[in-house]
Order: sequence, then structure tokens, then C-alpha cells
Amino acid sequence: MPLDHFADRITAALQKHGNSLCVGLDPRWDNLPLEIRERHAVGTLRAIASAYEEFCLRIIDIVAPLVPIVKPQSAFFEACGPAGMYALEKVLRHARDKGLLTILDSKRNDIASTAQAYADAAFAGVSFDGVPYPVWDADALTINPYLGRDAVEPFLKSARKDGRGVFVLIRTSNPGAGLFQDLICEGKPVYQHVGEAVAAWNDENLGQCGLGDVGAVVGATHPAELTALRQMFPDVYFLIPGYGAQGGTAVDVAGGFRADGLGAIINSSRGIIACFQPKEKDWETAVENATKETIAALEQFTPMGKLTASW
Amino acid sequence: MPLDHFADRITAALQKHGNSLCVGLDPRWDNLPLEIRERHAVGTLRAIASAYEEFCLRIIDIVAPLVPIVKPQSAFFEACGPAGMYALEKVLRHARDKGLLTILDSKRNDIASTAQAYADAAFAGVSFDGVPYPVWDADALTINPYLGRDAVEPFLKSARKDGRGVFVLIRTSNPGAGLFQDLICEGKPVYQHVGEAVAAWNDENLGQCGLGDVGAVVGATHPAELTALRQMFPDVYFLIPGYGAQGGTAVDVAGGFRADGLGAIINSSRGIIACFQPKEKDWETAVENATKETIAALEQFTPMGKLTASW
Repeated sequence: MPLDHFADRITAALQKHGNSLCVGLDPRWDNLPLEIRERHAVGTLRAIASAYEEFCLRIIDIVAPLVPIVKPQSAFFEACGPAGMYALEKVLRHARDKGLLTILDSKRNDIASTAQAYADAAFAGVSFDGVPYPVWDADALTINPYLGRDAVEPFLKSARKDGRGVFVLIRTSNPGAGLFQDLICEGKPVYQHVGEAVAAWNDENLGQCGLGDVGAVVGATHPAELTALRQMFPDVYFLIPGYGAQGGTAVDVAGGFRADGLGAIINSSRGIIACFQPKEKDWETAVENATKETIAALEQFTPMGKLTASW
Repeated sequence: MPLDHFADRITAALQKHGNSLCVGLDPRWDNLPLEIRERHAVGTLRAIASAYEEFCLRIIDIVAPLVPIVKPQSAFFEACGPAGMYALEKVLRHARDKGLLTILDSKRNDIASTAQAYADAAFAGVSFDGVPYPVWDADALTINPYLGRDAVEPFLKSARKDGRGVFVLIRTSNPGAGLFQDLICEGKPVYQHVGEAVAAWNDENLGQCGLGDVGAVVGATHPAELTALRQMFPDVYFLIPGYGAQGGTAVDVAGGFRADGLGAIINSSRGIIACFQPKEKDWETAVENATKETIAALEQFTPMGKLTASW
């Protein structure tokens, strides 16, 4: 029987690989291997997009046997304009073909009728004259909560049609995150209010594994808050960025896991896809080693060993 | 001398046309004229994108002599995937060629290093090996404040290099906007805290006209709040969506203007670009009339007549 709930699909993928690592696909020109940069000589955005595509496809080939999930970051593809969006489409397709789950990190949102267009594009496709046309076909999308419930609902509705999920920003990993997220309202910070709304949406539709399909983005750079949020919202999957280049360590993210090893997806981008010097010939081995080392580091401080157990 | 401050460019455009109307370009398949739908027979996302492009270009031709600004909504173009982004690029270029100012409504944001990629794409172009490649080349971009100051800064920095601006979401026009925006912190709602941060960023760089380059999105559907925010933040340009189809009226938006007729940009999307039945042959005349009627309605209740005065 195919798993048709998002959280069950995530859980099965984490258990299959025995780790919770998500590799962030954030291609930056200056960090690409020289051999790729030289082959796609700059001169047009199309050439740059094509270099990004080749690089991400090769990263996917390396990490697909090792990790359950990849997370392309829309911004770097959008920076190449329409050609970049073609590259993004191919990267998502290649990841799916290689058996990876995909989280499209685009932090979208808008008023309801507009949010619907983003949601359809992300998931099952946009319908014209009753025919659905798939666009990104991602397993999950990151979304921004600022616009409130009716802006989040179209994403939930579209995701749930087809076993997809969303990750709502709660506590982001950037140094200035607190400006609005930490404002205290009714005795607790704004991000906790957002967390409570997310948990309520999430609890509307739990999978067999006991977790739901409305996850939360909680930065690795705020370990105390991460641990507290884990206690508050045990059924919510956390997508935890900020590991590695942004300063988060395996110790910092340990509090994001439940005792059964579930509940956390740890994203590392630059720590893996920019772990080498551009001139390094054997950059692919470096990426493979960095991926394995990250998995090993996470294992030391988190109950990921338990992931091999069935729920 | 060319005007090089965003607010001065906006002000000059409003004064030239004697109105503050922005036409929202939110193409929806079901609302397109049948003649266009039939010519671009559905079957691929590329055909739909091509219909959106033709429709928006023709709308631009109609409204360019009448209004100062258009605002393409990214979501509807993104719904057609990469082909839609090509259409968006052409729509923005055509609007510029016709002398319109452009606000790209994509409500982007992310952590600083990623926000930089969105900002470069929106404004002066993304640099690769020191060469800038223009992407959307918009005059302004809407952005989401939830991630805080360091996520907003790259947009301000990129915009200011080149006389562009941003509009930060403060109080959105959707019915559920209040879920987080209305939480009371230290005696005032979250949206007011966001407004104060926006006003501080805005006041860093005022134009000769006395307004700045960090605008605020404030929905027409909350007239009392709009009036109060206008009093609080006299130097901030407001982009006011929600007029027309969403329920906002000319009376509702009157409070968004300063006494000198400046400070407000009123957006109408469906009220203009979907003012006709798809089968209507002379839809272009209907669009022209709806634009003129909207301008006339706004004039009745707002001090737009004063816009012809020089600052």
C-alpha cells in the first residue's frame, strides 16, 4: 500500500536512510566547481542557470543514496530569471527520479486567491479548463505565516489532496529574526503564537506515525527555543535550517528531536554543497565525505539510531 | 536632471497623471477574454503563459496613458512555471517601455544571504564574475517582514543603489490578516510594530518630495487602521490593495492620503482587468472605461486634484 500521508512518507524516508539530513540545494556561482563554471562560460543567465542545473544534478546523484530529502532554494534559481526556473524544474524532477523527497524552499505566501496559485504550482499542478498542469511537483513547500489563516489554508488544501505538506516559518535562523518574532504578546513571543496555530493546523490531519503535515521551520541557531518548541508541539515535524555554515551544531539541533528519533529534519546547505574549494578536482568525493560526516555528527548527539525502528 | 530617488520618481509619476491608481496585473485563465483564450489553445503551460503575456501587454497599452503604475502579481505567472516567468519578464519590460512604473508583487523574503539573491533579481541585476545581469528590473518589490531586519536590509541596499524601492507588508487586505498582525505587544498590535520599523528604515533616505523609499502595504479593507497609520507615518508611501473586488471603496482609501494628495498608491486588479465577461468582444473599451471610472471615483473622495501641484 503506498503511503499517502505526508508525515508517513517523511518518516518512512528517514527510517529507510537512518538519518534526518536534508541537503540544501542553494547554488551560488562563486562556490561552484571551476570545471563546471568553465564549461558553462558566463555571458548569459541561461549559461549560469545551466551550470546550476548541472551542479545540482551531480549533487543529487551523490547524496541520493545517503539522505532522505533535498531542499532547493528558489531564490538562487530565480536569480537567473526564467532560465533559472527551468533549471529548478529539472532539479526537482531529477531529485524525485532518484527517490528523494523534495522541499521547495521559497517561503511563499499571499492573500487567499493568490496563495492558491502558488499552492497549485508547488503541489498537484494548476488547473486550466479543468486539466491540471504540474509545475514544481514538490513534496513540501516552505511558507510565511504573516498573512494569517486564510492565506495558509489554500496551501493546506492543495497539499492534502495529494499527500504533500508545508513547513511554516516560526523561528527563523537569521541573527535578526527576533525583531518581530520575539515580540511578547499575551505573555509569550509572536513565534510561539505562530507555533500554536501551526500545531492546531497540523493536528487536523495526523499520519499513522503520529506526526502531521503542517511542519514548522525552526532555526538551529536558537537551540533553547528549539528544545522548548519540541516539548510544546510533539506532533509537528520541524525543518531545522542553520546547521553548519550558519553556526548550528549537532548539539544545538539535538533538542529538535523527539525521544523516538522522529520530528526533526536537519538541513545543511553550504556545509555540504560548498565544502570544497572551487579549483578542487575531486569535489564530488568531498561532497560525499561531508554528507557522511554530517550524518555521523548528527548521530552522536541525536537519537537518530532509533529511526530504523518501525513506528 | 533625472530623478534618482524612488519616492521622487513615484511622486512625479502620480503628479504627471493626476491620479494614484496602480493597475494590478493578476492574469487568471477563467477571466481572460475568450478571443485570447481561443488563440492560445490550452494544452501546455507555455500556451497559457503566452495568453497571459498577450493579455497583460494589451492591458498595459490601454492603461499606460491613464495611470502611473502597474503591479504584476508573480503568483499567477509562477503558476505557469518557467514559461510564466518568461511572460512576467516581457510584461515588466513592456510596462517600462510604455513609461509605467512597475511594482513586482511577489512578497519575497528569506535570510540575508538568500534575500540578496531575490533583491538582485528584482532590481539592478545579479552579479556573476562582477558583471550584473538584469532579471526583473522592477521599480519596486513587495516584501514580507516576518524574518526581521537583516532579511530586509539586502532589499534596501539593492533598491537604493539605483533609485528603486520596497513595499513591506504591514496590514494585509485579506479577512484573516489579523491572526498574527493584530496580536497586541507592549500596548500595540504587531502590525504597528512592523510599521514603526518600516518608518525608521524609510526615514533613513527621504527624497526631495519628503517621502521615502521603504513603503508599506496597508489593505483598503481596514479603513480605520489605514487612517491611523497615515497619521502615524506621514513620510511613508502606502501601497493600498483591496480596492474593488476585495471590497475596498474610494471612501475607504481616502484616509490613506496625506493632505497634499501624496502618500497613497491605490491598487485595483480584478475591478479593472476582469471588469468584462470573457465573451465580450469589446473588452478593451470596458477596461479603459473601468480605469477612467476608478480614477473618477478616487478623485471624488481623495485630494488627488492636488497631485498636479509640484512639491
